[in-house]
Amino acid sequence: MSEPLLAGGIRAVNVGVAGFAGPPRAHGAVVQDVDWRPPAGGDRDAGLVLARLEDDADDPIGARVAAANAEVVRRILAAQPVLVDVRPAAEIVPGLGGRTILHAGPPIEWSRMCGPVQGAVIGAVLYEGWADSPDAARRLADAGEIAFAPCHHHGAVGPMAGVVSPSMPVAVVEDAASGRRASATLNEGLGKVLRFGAYGAEVLERLRWMASVLAPALARALGARGAVDLRSITAQALSMGDECHNRNVAATSLFARLIAPALVRTSPGAVAAAALDFLEANNHFYLNLSMAAAKCALDGAHGVAGSTVVTAMARNGVEFGIRVSGAGDGWFTAPATVPDGLYFPGYGAADANPDLGDSAITETMGLGGFAMAAAPAIARFVGGTADDAVAHTRAMAAITLAGNPQYAIPALGFAGTPTAIDCRRVVDSGVAPVIDTGIAHREAGVGQIGAGIARAPLACFTAALGAVGRRLGVAPSGAAARE
Amino acid sequence: MSEPLLAGGIRAVNVGVAGFAGPPRAHGAVVQDVDWRPPAGGDRDAGLVLARLEDDADDPIGARVAAANAEVVRRILAAQPVLVDVRPAAEIVPGLGGRTILHAGPPIEWSRMCGPVQGAVIGAVLYEGWADSPDAARRLADAGEIAFAPCHHHGAVGPMAGVVSPSMPVAVVEDAASGRRASATLNEGLGKVLRFGAYGAEVLERLRWMASVLAPALARALGARGAVDLRSITAQALSMGDECHNRNVAATSLFARLIAPALVRTSPGAVAAAALDFLEANNHFYLNLSMAAAKCALDGAHGVAGSTVVTAMARNGVEFGIRVSGAGDGWFTAPATVPDGLYFPGYGAADANPDLGDSAITETMGLGGFAMAAAPAIARFVGGTADDAVAHTRAMAAITLAGNPQYAIPALGFAGTPTAIDCRRVVDSGVAPVIDTGIAHREAGVGQIGAGIARAPLACFTAALGAVGRRLGVAPSGAAARE
Repeated sequence: MSEPLLAGGIRAVNVGVAGFAGPPRAHGAVVQDVDWRPPAGGDRDAGLVLARLEDDADDPIGARVAAANAEVVRRILAAQPVLVDVRPAAEIVPGLGGRTILHAGPPIEWSRMCGPVQGAVIGAVLYEGWADSPDAARRLADAGEIAFAPCHHHGAVGPMAGVVSPSMPVAVVEDAASGRRASATLNEGLGKVLRFGAYGAEVLERLRWMASVLAPALARALGARGAVDLRSITAQALSMGDECHNRNVAATSLFARLIAPALVRTSPGAVAAAALDFLEANNHFYLNLSMAAAKCALDGAHGVAGSTVVTAMARNGVEFGIRVSGAGDGWFTAPATVPDGLYFPGYGAADANPDLGDSAITETMGLGGFAMAAAPAIARFVGGTADDAVAHTRAMAAITLAGNPQYAIPALGFAGTPTAIDCRRVVDSGVAPVIDTGIAHREAGVGQIGAGIARAPLACFTAALGAVGRRLGVAPSGAAARE
Repeated sequence: MSEPLLAGGIRAVNVGVAGFAGPPRAHGAVVQDVDWRPPAGGDRDAGLVLARLEDDADDPIGARVAAANAEVVRRILAAQPVLVDVRPAAEIVPGLGGRTILHAGPPIEWSRMCGPVQGAVIGAVLYEGWADSPDAARRLADAGEIAFAPCHHHGAVGPMAGVVSPSMPVAVVEDAASGRRASATLNEGLGKVLRFGAYGAEVLERLRWMASVLAPALARALGARGAVDLRSITAQALSMGDECHNRNVAATSLFARLIAPALVRTSPGAVAAAALDFLEANNHFYLNLSMAAAKCALDGAHGVAGSTVVTAMARNGVEFGIRVSGAGDGWFTAPATVPDGLYFPGYGAADANPDLGDSAITETMGLGGFAMAAAPAIARFVGGTADDAVAHTRAMAAITLAGNPQYAIPALGFAGTPTAIDCRRVVDSGVAPVIDTGIAHREAGVGQIGAGIARAPLACFTAALGAVGRRLGVAPSGAAARE
């Protein structure tokens, strides 16, 4: 219908800034606006790197990047994450000995940690019995008596504060294809919980019950029935309204139904009933399994020279960091921002901690905000509509290299979730990865105060792209990664 | 964009049959087609009744119909179905004594029953021990030694053959608002099952296990934890990809997770584990609970004089029948047709039994085909797309009087499921209610051979509308209901 008008009526074409079309239009001209922005937001260095790293079969570097990214995509999609065990972290997580505590996001020292992470550290110190009061715990940390490291440096992930201490139980996920493993803490549920920085008696009591009752029961059940296929549960859950980051009710229900018979067969009745009560009351139980599964798949895709694909996005509540497959093991960071969302009654943006947690590993895997079209109900929870949810997923398709055929979204005609974030496409388009996240109070222990949409800072991707370029010998300059 | 063209270019308007626009168009005229059909498909008697029964505040009859329908809608939406118990049918179903067997759909005698229903009757006779071989069971039925009645006449419903005999366990659903009860058999799962007319040893063995182990375990669990809110589970499931007729994986998972702790606390470990195994293996377990909940709500809305709202749709595999609130307790029937759908490998339409089962009570409640937009995956299973699913739900809005605010569909901006089928709107529009259904082999015991979309025959609605009219003294003639 509109073709004849376009063909006949255009007198001028305005490329880029819409305001330039104003004067000619005011004089009666027909001006067709074309949405265009310079690549890399006009950053000359980034633009040059970008140009050199584009897929190009006739250029050795362009061909190498293309091949590296194809290999990364192949590895991400080939992963078959299964839940094999639940064990104390010290048995599973390499290097978690002595007074070591892991935390979410890129590296950060104790003095710079945000409120919720410091609170969770205090809770972990009390839980481990390294101190007998919050003040004593704080003094221990102040005195440098505790070693800190990111979960991500030890094959692990944790939501929000992401604190893991040696005797906490972790879910052990294995890639059935490669044997590679990753782990995550067990989800505590909502309310006063360690991951939001709470460390009161009820928090520690729950953690002790999880370690002494729940974890061994789950381990026995897994031993009896065999591994649980998490890829299958995630795939089903995506057709049941979950995006497997902020909404996990379907996946948790499927998991609980699946594990229940073996739980009953391998535990005393009272133990099995208490474990099933816990699974029934916690719609987020699957989140941590989803995270460990994503970590497992993405770790297997890390370290492919020449690849511009993101293998981790994580936040420590102060900084947002990413790792990129072909850019080494360092982090490319920028200040974390406060998510844009809805707050529970009585709270607002002034109370919010900046974006926090390793849970953005789900988005890195094509879930969460990237799969929001599968979960219209979550769009409402974070302050949007079902149409917004579809728009987020469609937008993410522009900065990713694949649709995951195993993770289909019914509302999009069973298209696969947009997977494998390409730094080139992020830098070129200026479209930042969208993260569907909970919002923590900035003070330790208050807990969740809302949920919303966070955006990964573009600076991380520009810096990472520069680093890939330097490794390929083409980048003029740029920020160095922080190891 | 198209406005100027429309305003400037029309030379003729063609109302109704599209072919009439051909000749003028062939001579170069611009013809705008308007989609129009005479009300009641041009049936003069039905058209007259329809005209008299339309909402009209200034006409005593029009006002009475409007008020009656408003009351029916109020009752349907007010129902709060909860699962309270699981008992042998003879204890719960009024009048189910001696050698009585209930079946799906409107009344039908033994000799006219379709293959799957005859097979299920033979199975029930063997299960009850009234005969010791299929031939002996058949002779008993041939000799008139068994009394048959529709489930619907006894406050019950059953999927497919819908056969209920005295010692089979039934789920007891109560409307917490009114105390009214309805019941349904427990779902047996897929494969060789009684409801598809199978009566082999494995079928009878499973039925005996369900009666002696599963049913008492569920009853004990319900007794310990209290009633299960089915309205809440259905509402959640609709945001999790179920339409609660042909797809029930979310609702079944939610139910299993909810009942598991109480099952474990009230049964020996081996019993609880076996019951949980059964719930894990049967994604359709919730179907029968969904049906009983719908039956409970709709029975409470039946018998409002002047109402043109449908309170039951059911099929016996030979005839399709409906009951209407203001048309008495009789059935308005028409021949059942073969659903339009997809067949499992090796089967086709020639193998299919015509539409069968009481499960269309879910559509009568605004679920199933009416809620298909909530379940894009089921559209694929029955041979359509996600867009088809949305189109079905939108089309049903045109023949219903309400959107159920408790049953919201995320993909439609959380619009309520189209509820309360109005015979007037069906007759006026010619849009037949859509039913999302399984397809049975026409021979006893073969089982499910496909799934598809069935349409309720329009003749049922025309006849029922005439009956409401006669009761209000306005109908000239028309078919009588069959009691």
